[in-house]
Amino acid sequence: MSAGTFDLAAWSTERLDRVEQALSRWVPASAPAGLGEAMRYAVLDGGKRLRPLLVMAAAEAVAREADGMALRAQTNGAALRAACAVELIHAYSLVHDDMPSMDNDVLRRGKPTVHVVYGEAMALLAGDALQALAFELLTPDDGTVPAATQATLCRLLARAAGFDGMAGGQAIDLTSVGLALTEAQLSTMHRLKTGALLQGSVMMGLACAEAPPLARDALAAYGAAVGLAFQVVDDILDVTADSVTLGKTAGKDAAHDKPTYVSLLGLAASQAYAQALLAQALAALQASGLHNTDALRALADMVVNRSC
Amino acid sequence: MSAGTFDLAAWSTERLDRVEQALSRWVPASAPAGLGEAMRYAVLDGGKRLRPLLVMAAAEAVAREADGMALRAQTNGAALRAACAVELIHAYSLVHDDMPSMDNDVLRRGKPTVHVVYGEAMALLAGDALQALAFELLTPDDGTVPAATQATLCRLLARAAGFDGMAGGQAIDLTSVGLALTEAQLSTMHRLKTGALLQGSVMMGLACAEAPPLARDALAAYGAAVGLAFQVVDDILDVTADSVTLGKTAGKDAAHDKPTYVSLLGLAASQAYAQALLAQALAALQASGLHNTDALRALADMVVNRSC
Repeated sequence: MSAGTFDLAAWSTERLDRVEQALSRWVPASAPAGLGEAMRYAVLDGGKRLRPLLVMAAAEAVAREADGMALRAQTNGAALRAACAVELIHAYSLVHDDMPSMDNDVLRRGKPTVHVVYGEAMALLAGDALQALAFELLTPDDGTVPAATQATLCRLLARAAGFDGMAGGQAIDLTSVGLALTEAQLSTMHRLKTGALLQGSVMMGLACAEAPPLARDALAAYGAAVGLAFQVVDDILDVTADSVTLGKTAGKDAAHDKPTYVSLLGLAASQAYAQALLAQALAALQASGLHNTDALRALADMVVNRSC
Repeated sequence: MSAGTFDLAAWSTERLDRVEQALSRWVPASAPAGLGEAMRYAVLDGGKRLRPLLVMAAAEAVAREADGMALRAQTNGAALRAACAVELIHAYSLVHDDMPSMDNDVLRRGKPTVHVVYGEAMALLAGDALQALAFELLTPDDGTVPAATQATLCRLLARAAGFDGMAGGQAIDLTSVGLALTEAQLSTMHRLKTGALLQGSVMMGLACAEAPPLARDALAAYGAAVGLAFQVVDDILDVTADSVTLGKTAGKDAAHDKPTYVSLLGLAASQAYAQALLAQALAALQASGLHNTDALRALADMVVNRSC
């Protein structure tokens, strides 16, 4: 099937059904004293689920069997857990990022943010518990995921989320408000803040099967390009879209005097840059030697050409 | 060597030298935009390091070779990483717990708390990054720790830190202010809030070597008793000690109208309960079939009979 005829919507729907069911099963309503309710509010029923889709698409690209049933069986174990784990990390980062001491945002995915509904202290705890739960999901003791895969997934996720990944990028973001960053500095910030977890999603999907080194390097390049493109487009949409379309507050980068690609390069150059990154991502897939890359191709296209 | 003549101070000093050096090496000064500085402030140069000591003591109790050099080699790999990882989780929980939306505490280990020095947003990020770093420490890719051990350590730590452990206990704590809890409710809160990570420390040390099931069950019982005793004594010291001795604000439980063992049972009965838990912990060690348990015995005694 060529990318031109690949039905991303149908492909995504089937994967997201499984991801949503798994998240609903694994994010515990039973957690004590309202913690479970806050965790579920933060995670369920919302979001584009881009990161889980990248995990599943990468896992399918490297899976040995490409026919439907076998593929589904393979990607229901480690890959499904990895998909949910990256989404939990993403969800926790949004909860903490929205808090008054950070971005102080009251709207997320079209709903009041977690601290608005449950209070700041519970939002803080819910975020903390979601991060721990991500690693818990990756380390089942039921024999479904090999120990070596568990260890690799935990390593990739911890690095993507930590000081040299998402948290480090957020620290740069925090201290860059009002500063005139160079493009290199802006790129470093986004490579860490958003790119690390997006690229990590791809690499975690890859880690669910054995892949040749060539494919590994190619998917790392794909993940890096898609990760950066995501942020460039985010900066563009912050200027060109409205809050209702975005499901979050539009124009907040400018309102907070945050450096963005649009403020640095201008709108037209930012749009051209996003397209160039898409071309890079697709070229990397071409060079990967992998055959089953339709979903990865379509996801890269979706990231760059999305309207929200 | 009997417990009576065991020199806990000397034993601890040797282990803590290694733990402090490892923490200083692994908590990255290089993390961007001041994040590393805040992380290091939160972790280094302070604290009793009870959790790392429990990891090392448990690892030594189940290590095959009990002579000094071999033991040190064995406990320099997985056990040293586990010891540092639990301390990072503990440190992050203190950073977040001290924040204005939680306990709003300005003094910790005799120093201004992290948010006082670095601001709330950076404190939030430092805590988040410390949690991720804990899992990064447990999953090195240098061949020093077997993948199966890495996976087990991540599983134990994630469960101890998460919704059914520390974070869950903190949620109960948060929603219990001003309430009259039963002893069962208070015990559940502390079993999760403090006990899970203390017991988890013991179980992580145990996971660094192969131990018979009998020893595993016995050390789980030991960890549960020590974990609960720690909190009972904490409640006692909050009433009987002063802020300078504690290195944190004394009397804050009463000031915040938090339920404690002292408020529930009275001071004398709380002291008797702590001694009973110590006896339980020592009986569990006796039943473990393990020989090299002097450090575990001495640590239990120290937890119950400490003055700060």
